[in-house]
This record gives sequence, C-alpha cells and structure tokens, in this order.
Amino acid sequence: MPLTDDQRAEIEAARATPRPTLRAVSEGMEAHLYRAHEVLDHGFIRVIDYMGDDSAIVQAARVSYGAGTKHVSNDEGLIRYLMRHWHSTPFEMCEVKLHVKLPVFVARQWIRHRTANVNEYSARYSILDREFYIPAPEQLAAQSTVNNQGRGEVLAGPEAARVLEMLKRDAAQCYDDYEAMLSQTQADGTPQQGLARELARMNLPANIYTQWYWKTDLHNLFHFLRLRADAHAQYEIRVYAEAIADCVKDWVPLAYAAFEDYRMGGTTLSAKAIAVLKRRLAGETVGQEGSGMSKGEWREFEAVWG
Amino acid sequence: MPLTDDQRAEIEAARATPRPTLRAVSEGMEAHLYRAHEVLDHGFIRVIDYMGDDSAIVQAARVSYGAGTKHVSNDEGLIRYLMRHWHSTPFEMCEVKLHVKLPVFVARQWIRHRTANVNEYSARYSILDREFYIPAPEQLAAQSTVNNQGRGEVLAGPEAARVLEMLKRDAAQCYDDYEAMLSQTQADGTPQQGLARELARMNLPANIYTQWYWKTDLHNLFHFLRLRADAHAQYEIRVYAEAIADCVKDWVPLAYAAFEDYRMGGTTLSAKAIAVLKRRLAGETVGQEGSGMSKGEWREFEAVWG
Amino acid sequence: MPLTDDQRAEIEAARATPRPTLRAVSEGMEAHLYRAHEVLDHGFIRVIDYMGDDSAIVQAARVSYGAGTKHVSNDEGLIRYLMRHWHSTPFEMCEVKLHVKLPVFVARQWIRHRTANVNEYSARYSILDREFYIPAPEQLAAQSTVNNQGRGEVLAGPEAARVLEMLKRDAAQCYDDYEAMLSQTQADGTPQQGLARELARMNLPANIYTQWYWKTDLHNLFHFLRLRADAHAQYEIRVYAEAIADCVKDWVPLAYAAFEDYRMGGTTLSAKAIAVLKRRLAGETVGQEGSGMSKGEWREFEAVWG
Amino acid sequence: MPLTDDQRAEIEAARATPRPTLRAVSEGMEAHLYRAHEVLDHGFIRVIDYMGDDSAIVQAARVSYGAGTKHVSNDEGLIRYLMRHWHSTPFEMCEVKLHVKLPVFVARQWIRHRTANVNEYSARYSILDREFYIPAPEQLAAQSTVNNQGRGEVLAGPEAARVLEMLKRDAAQCYDDYEAMLSQTQADGTPQQGLARELARMNLPANIYTQWYWKTDLHNLFHFLRLRADAHAQYEIRVYAEAIADCVKDWVPLAYAAFEDYRMGGTTLSAKAIAVLKRRLAGETVGQEGSGMSKGEWREFEAVWG
Repeated sequence: MPLTDDQRAEIEAARATPRPTLRAVSEGMEAHLYRAHEVLDHGFIRVIDYMGDDSAIVQAARVSYGAGTKHVSNDEGLIRYLMRHWHSTPFEMCEVKLHVKLPVFVARQWIRHRTANVNEYSARYSILDREFYIPAPEQLAAQSTVNNQGRGEVLAGPEAARVLEMLKRDAAQCYDDYEAMLSQTQADGTPQQGLARELARMNLPANIYTQWYWKTDLHNLFHFLRLRADAHAQYEIRVYAEAIADCVKDWVPLAYAAFEDYRMGGTTLSAKAIAVLKRRLAGETVGQEGSGMSKGEWREFEAVWG
Repeated sequence: MPLTDDQRAEIEAARATPRPTLRAVSEGMEAHLYRAHEVLDHGFIRVIDYMGDDSAIVQAARVSYGAGTKHVSNDEGLIRYLMRHWHSTPFEMCEVKLHVKLPVFVARQWIRHRTANVNEYSARYSILDREFYIPAPEQLAAQSTVNNQGRGEVLAGPEAARVLEMLKRDAAQCYDDYEAMLSQTQADGTPQQGLARELARMNLPANIYTQWYWKTDLHNLFHFLRLRADAHAQYEIRVYAEAIADCVKDWVPLAYAAFEDYRMGGTTLSAKAIAVLKRRLAGETVGQEGSGMSKGEWREFEAVWG
Repeated sequence: MPLTDDQRAEIEAARATPRPTLRAVSEGMEAHLYRAHEVLDHGFIRVIDYMGDDSAIVQAARVSYGAGTKHVSNDEGLIRYLMRHWHSTPFEMCEVKLHVKLPVFVARQWIRHRTANVNEYSARYSILDREFYIPAPEQLAAQSTVNNQGRGEVLAGPEAARVLEMLKRDAAQCYDDYEAMLSQTQADGTPQQGLARELARMNLPANIYTQWYWKTDLHNLFHFLRLRADAHAQYEIRVYAEAIADCVKDWVPLAYAAFEDYRMGGTTLSAKAIAVLKRRLAGETVGQEGSGMSKGEWREFEAVWG
Repeated sequence: MPLTDDQRAEIEAARATPRPTLRAVSEGMEAHLYRAHEVLDHGFIRVIDYMGDDSAIVQAARVSYGAGTKHVSNDEGLIRYLMRHWHSTPFEMCEVKLHVKLPVFVARQWIRHRTANVNEYSARYSILDREFYIPAPEQLAAQSTVNNQGRGEVLAGPEAARVLEMLKRDAAQCYDDYEAMLSQTQADGTPQQGLARELARMNLPANIYTQWYWKTDLHNLFHFLRLRADAHAQYEIRVYAEAIADCVKDWVPLAYAAFEDYRMGGTTLSAKAIAVLKRRLAGETVGQEGSGMSKGEWREFEAVWG
C-alpha cells in the first residue's frame, strides 16, 4: 500500500479547492488530478498537471492548415486524419506531468525515452526509503526459450519460493548495510563519521523504489505507450503504461480512440508482406519459402495473418 | 492594427467563461490569456495556454532533492539557487503555448530554437494574406561598420523614403502576381487552371507575415529570451522576445527575477578575464597587451568593466 | 549549372589526397565525398563527412544484446530484425554531414526536422547571390482538386509561360532592389548610407537559394527520407531526398535495403483495415460501408489493396 | 584490470590496419582510437569513432557567416570567437562515439544528458558479469557537513574497512543469488526452470558494471564535461569526464583550449555580483550585507573573489 494517511490527506486537500481558469479544461482529466493510481506493490502514477484537450489538437491543426481543414466535418474525423497521416505536431500541443514511483530497473528502461522532462529523487541529497519491489508469485516466470528478452512459464511453487526468499533477504541485507554505512553511530552506539550518501547508494539493488516527476507531450506519450503498453514489453513497465493509458483515455478521448485504432491495434507490413497478402487475396497459397521472408519474419507474419 | 473586430470578439468570448480547475493557476498569466499583444505593424503574440507557476518549480525541485531542500528557507531562495547553479530541470516543469504572428524572416531565425513544438500556417494548404512588414522609418538603419551582423545609424530621410518605396512596391507586385498565378481566371476573365499553392508561395518575399502555435518549456524559453531579448539581437525579433518577457514576468515572477539577475543582467568571464580583474582589484593597471586577450575580446571586456 | 570551375577544382583537390585512418570506412561513401550532386536548377547536395557503416550498426546492436545476438546468423538478418522491430538506437550510431544548396521555401520545410545540426548561410552577415529557383515547365502544375496540398495537371503552355514570366520578373526586380538598398552609392553614383543586410534580406522571395551544412544520424535521416522521398512530398524537396537516398544506398547498403522493404515499400494498417483484410482473405466482399472507415480512409485503403 | 588478453589482441588488430579516407582526419584522435583508457577499478572509455576536427568547426562557421568571417585572421581566433559568443552550431558539426564501461549508479547520472545516442548492454537479453565497483580506501569519504550532495573527510581506517567489507559481501551475495535464480540447476544439481533474466537483474546493486556505446556532438560533449569534470561533480563520474577530456584535447586542440579558457576556467557573474566588483574596483569595501546576495551566494562569490 504505497500511500500514507498523510499523503491521502494532502491529496484530498489539493483536490478540495478548485480555482477558476480560462484555459482549456478536460473534465475527464480533472477527475484524475493528484490521485494516486497504485501500480505494483509500492508504486503509483499521479497526474500532477496537464495542458490541452482534444479541442486543442484540432485548434493547432487548423492553424496549420488554415481554410484547408474547413471541409473536414468534425473534430473526430480531423483527429483520425492526423493520426493516420503521422501528422505529429498537433498532438505535441498537449502536455502532461506525472508523479511516478517506480523500481529503479523500470526507471532505467523508462528514461531511455529522451523527449521528456524529468526531476528524479536524488540519492546524493537524500536517503531512499526501505521499499523494494518483490514480484507477486504469478509474475515469477522462467526465461522464455523462444524469446531472448521474454518470459516463459510461471515458476513452480518451490522454485518461486526460493526466488522470493533470495530477493527479500538480499534487499533487507543491502538496505541494513546502507543504513549502517550512513549512520553516525555504530550498532553498539560508538560514534562513526558516516559514509557520504552519494557513495552509500551504490549498495542498493535495482528493485528499490525511486520517484520522479515526468513531463512529456501527447505525441511522445503515445510513442511511449505504443512500446510499453505492448504485449512484448516487460510486465513491470507495462502496468505503468496501462495505468497512464487509462488516464489518457479520459483526458483526450478522441485522440486516444484514434491511437488505439491506428497504433495499438494496427500493424506494419513490409513490401514483402504486402506482396504475400496480395497473392493470398488473389487465391494463391503462399508459405514461408515463397515469401522471401526469413523464418523469424514469417513467424511474426503468421501470428497476425495465420 | 493586426486584429479584426471578429478576432477581438472571439477573444472576449473566450475570456468570458472561466471554468474550475484543480491545477496550479497563475493569476498573473490568466490576465494575459488569449489577449493579443501587438508587435511590429501586423504581428502579435498571444498566450494560448500555460502549465505551472513558481510553486511548480519549487515542487519539482523538492521531489529531486527530498529532505535535502528543507533547509532552504523559502521559495525565492530556492529558485535563485536553482538558477545560479544551472539546475535546469525544475524550470522545464513549466510550459507555455503561444500564438504568434510574425514576418517570415523572423520566423526563420526563431525556428532555429529546436526544443519547441510548432504548428505553422501552411502555404501548401492555404493562401497567405496580403500583409507585409514595412519597418517604421526610425528602424531603417544602415549596415553597421563595426559589427558584421548589426545596424548602424538610422538612414537619412530621402534614402529611407527610397527604401520604403522599394519594399512596398515589391511586396505589392509579388503579392499581385501570387494572386494572379493562383487564380482560376485571368485579369480579363478568361479561365485558366491556377497554379498549385505549394508553387505560387515561392514568389512571396520574406517580409510577408506567417503565424504559428509555439510551445516550449520555461527553461528553453529563458534561453530564447536571453539570446533574443539581448541588445545584440535583431530589433524585429527582439520586440517579440520583449513582449513574451512581459508575460513571463507576470506568470512566474520569482523565476523571472532570478533570470534577470543571473542571465539578462549577468555576464560570463573567461579565465583570462578573471585574472585581469583580480590584478585590477589588487591595484594593478592592466591593458589589452598584458591581458592575453585579442583586440576583439578586450573591446567586449572593456564594454562591461571599463 | 550550380558549380563554378573554381568549386570543381576545389572538390578535385579535396578528393586527391586520401589519408590513413583506423575508423570504419565505407568505400561506397568515399566515392561520393565532396562531389556535388546537382538538384533543381542551381542546387546540390554534397557529402562532407560520415561516421560508420553497416558493420557499425551491427556492432552497436551486439553491445546492447550481448550474447543474445550470437544466434542471428549474419549482419543482414540482424539489420532487418532491428528495422522490423523499430530498434532505432543502432541506426543512430551512424552519422552523416551534408552541404546542401536549396531554395528558401524548401529549407523552411526541411528545417522542421528538428533532430539535426545546422549551420546556414547568414544573410545578416553576408549577401546572398542572385540565384532563384525557376521551375522547369513540366513542373508547373495546377492546384490539385482532390488534395489540398498537392498538384494536379501540368499547366497549359500559355499559362505556364505567364507564370514563368512573373516568377522571373519578380525575382529580378526584388534582387535589383535588394542590391540597390544595400549599395553605398545610388544608381547615379551619389553616395548613400546603404541599408543593413539584416533588413534588406526581407525583400527576397522564397525561391532564392540559400545553403547549409546539415548533419544528422541515420535513424533520423531514414525518417526524413520516408517523409520527403514519398510520392506525396512536394517535388522540390523530393528531388533532394532522392539525391540523398542514392548516397545512403552506397553508404550502408544493408540498412538501406531493409529501409526500402520495411519503410518505403511498406504500409501501416489500422485495426479496422486488418479486420477488412481478414474478412476478404476469408472470401467475403467488403466495401466502404461495411468497413467502419470514413470515405477518405477507404480511398487510401483502396489505393493499396484495390 | 578491465581488459582481458583477448580484448587487447582485438584492439591491436583493429589498430593494425589503417585504410585510406578522404574525410577530415585528426592525427591526435587516431592515436586514441579503440585503446581502452582505464577508469576506476574495472571501467574504461574507448574512442570508437569520430567525425571532424578543428578545421571542420571553422569550415562550418564560414558557411554560416560567409564573407563576413574573412576578416578573422586565423582558425584559433575564430574558434575563440565562437566559444565566447555561445555560437554552438559549428561545434555540433563534430561528433564522437565512445565505448564506456561504468558502474550503474554512474550510468544513471550520465544518461540524464539527453542529447546523445546510446546502446546499452541489455540485462534482459544477456547476463551481466560479476564485476562491481569497490572504491579505493582514499575515496571512502564521509558525508559533507556543509554540502548536501558532497563528500567530506576520508573515513578513518576501521570505518573504511567496515564499509568495504559490507560492499564486498553484499555484492558477492547478490551476484551469487542472481546466478542461482538464473540457473537451470539448483546447487545440488536438481533441475529447476531458471528465472527470466529481465527479473533476475533486479537483485543486482548499483555498483555493478554495465557498458554502452555513447555518441554525441562536441557542443553537447563540452556541456557534459563542464558539469562532470567540475570539482563539484561526484568523483566516480568525474574520472570518466577527465579521461574523455584527455582525448578531446588531442582531437580538437584549438576548441579544447577555448573551452578551458571560457568554460572550465571561466565563471558567471550575476548583476549583483557585477555591481559588487565594480564597487570594489572603485576602491570600496563591500561585504555580504551590502551586496544584496544571500549568505550562500556570498560564500560562492567569495570562493572566487576573496
């Protein structure tokens, strides 16, 4: 349970006092503001601020295309047109700021999305809390035998128990020693100098939780979601992406629906794949040998088209 | 006068209907929202949206530094500390979206600031209006004789009159031909096909007005203002930077004050310049020969230090 | 013909003196170095420098995936795998620097690709040459009646002649006045002050040529090529993209082949489009009404699938 | 000692076979290519590739400024001028690619420099080696009492010994368990499934070594060096910055000298600080009270100016 009573009270206070604004307001997003959506065992995402809504996307597009957009009958049609034709700049006109609490190994993957602004909790300045991600037993899976970067079957009970035991023991041991190194007294009360925080942090394993403010625009957020809410993404980052997606759906419902149709639910075909589909549509039976694709490509093609 | 009565009415309508929000609100910025601040003869800047305020900067910094920032007594002190130490990420947590109408030659300089989102009016899709920047006579200056990229004295009256005459005549001629090329009828009413807009636009000179939505974060905006509100910036972009600066001052007054002290009013010294100042503070007289600086550097050094 | 004899001599001199290096060398790209590939009537692209080759892409991927990549039998297979799965970072490990001479209206479109480094000729510092893009008659097309941002039929002879006449006359007039404004003598020899260059440039139409150094990585270059070498791109930028593509093909032949298969020759399907194709593969006849697509979407779908 | 005999042999082989190129060559940088510069106990930096040299900076600047730069007598003067006036784009025309092996907690700080291309070793795909950063005793310092993010005195011997013992024990324990979780056999030889790599990695502490290819341009590299080779940077990243700086000095000696004078050896003054210095130059004695600065600012001011 990641939130203390104090934190809940603080969130409720922030939510209690609406103020008037002339800016674009998304009712759907206002309902999410500040609330913590719990993720994993100690993590969360919280919407701290947002800029724009579906209308802001349309408004920006109409600045670009001038009278040329007048014939598009409505906002939904225009937004779908923009998404379909990879016109990314109108989506960049919306911005969101999140507060995220997440394990370090997830943060390391997340930060590779460079087009974002980040303020992370600094373990040079301050001391990290004793909070570690310990997977639920149903998430403890074996290495996939077909995918170098994936998971296979869930571990059998006794092996899962051994793994959990190791994860917990090592986290506890490392954190105990982190505290002991930082402390200005030894266990027996004798004074010591206390190691610099910037050094002590090196002893902490990658399942410890960190937190940050993360701000990005809607176009880059969609890119993040496409990669991280995908079925091939690691479970521990996917659950964050899914929690964010639930907020985005309420924030910009038209843009999100277009994103689902064209990106999450869509697919990309190579020239070779187009040729195979056309031959099949013409009644021909085409297998891997005649496709010009490698075995790996064919496997991926078949997963969609049979 | 860049705004039509329709536009003024539209702005007043947008300003008439505040809605409640739970987000951070900057009263100072609300007063600017949508209003057109007129710049040059037909241009303007308008704040379309913003995210965050001085408190949002502080809040982001406290996420980073955790308990380590508790000892800084107040928001102003913390913001000054961040600015002084080039901690840019908390300033990136604020965002602003502007609607700008500006001559193309100004737009070409402006767009070189890459860390921003832009939707520009497209002359492939739509037809540009007959609006050209014609400088006020007091802005018609001769080429500087000391600075390759600067202006010198204001042109004498008859020369200024000749320049204005040429600028106006060429703008009118080019726009007349732009219209004639686009038109599906010739001057005498005979039908013609009408040139594609994407081609006809090439006949328009660089003082024609374009417009765009431009969105950036406060850190990058400060960088833009430092370069473009500087005395060495070309007058025609400087007036835009100054109009924006007036809004920023009302939006984030503490951050803007720190920016003025450390960036706009500050200076940078090389190791050589530090050495010269130290010798002077010790009572020594140091001229260019003994400074290790080139003549150009010394001229710039003397401009500040005498 | 954009190159003077002096320029040709300079290029030949630069090409005459190979020096030893330990870096990755692409023989195909060495053959292009410095040579001007002529584009439009006065433009060109020239490769000034490059970093990396196909092997550099593979090498970077193997750093990422470690032993996990060992099972991929060869470089071509790995490069195709990376392209298919949108693993962009290995392609970012190659870099290219071009010298480009191009009309201003093309430059304005080009510069919107933000992830690149640019040094453009400055008309604040220096005087532009009297060189304007005047389209060949077969490029003078009417506005498309179906596409707001496209061209339709080629203009009939007399209309084309009128357009060319206007373009030439206005360019000459504007440039004459540009020179007259800059000059320190009037036509009759009387001295005048001479307008600042930063002001005089505003009189120049958008078909004047500028030039720049443009440097980007291979991933972003592929993105540029996908958009600008596309059949829907404006002809005047497409010819630059095609000239660059010809160099890239010789620089990184394996990566370019993968790009052609997956990007240039590929297509994207929405969830709705996948559903329609599956129904067709199952023998069903599906038209626009039953597709869930708008008329515009359906037209685009039919253009590929019939 | 971070390099195996095999790695040394591979480096020597790569260095044995120079090939001809027409590109700009920096003799100083060729001498560094591929060689590992050892950093910390198991880390290194290696130059894998580079683009450009001092002349490339000058050449790019001359494209921008055209005839306007002719009066600057030589390359050194022009490079100093560019650095002094923050003209960053010519420096962006040089690029470097490094192979770096570094502890994860250093990598986490490093990656915050967003304008770079990175391929990091993936612990989802592959298994990390048993290599941990264990500080030398003289680097084991206490938390600073004056600086929230700094180090104070070196730890006394017995406390240092306790810290080293904890770091070594925890690293060994965590890595043993990492291997045990991954393994498909238990310690007694009984088969088990073996945990997925993407999960097992969460047990590894932040002093484990990772590696990456990192590519950036010279302007952004100078920014990195200014922050990370600074005396206030954490020692463990500073030694990497210093090793890189040694290579840059040989790669672009003129640019590096300008960087040292204007950036590393230079300082920034606020408007308030300028005012104080001017009063001091005029013979006045000014202390903190009369300066308008806070105590913290004054302390930093005094550190430079006494």
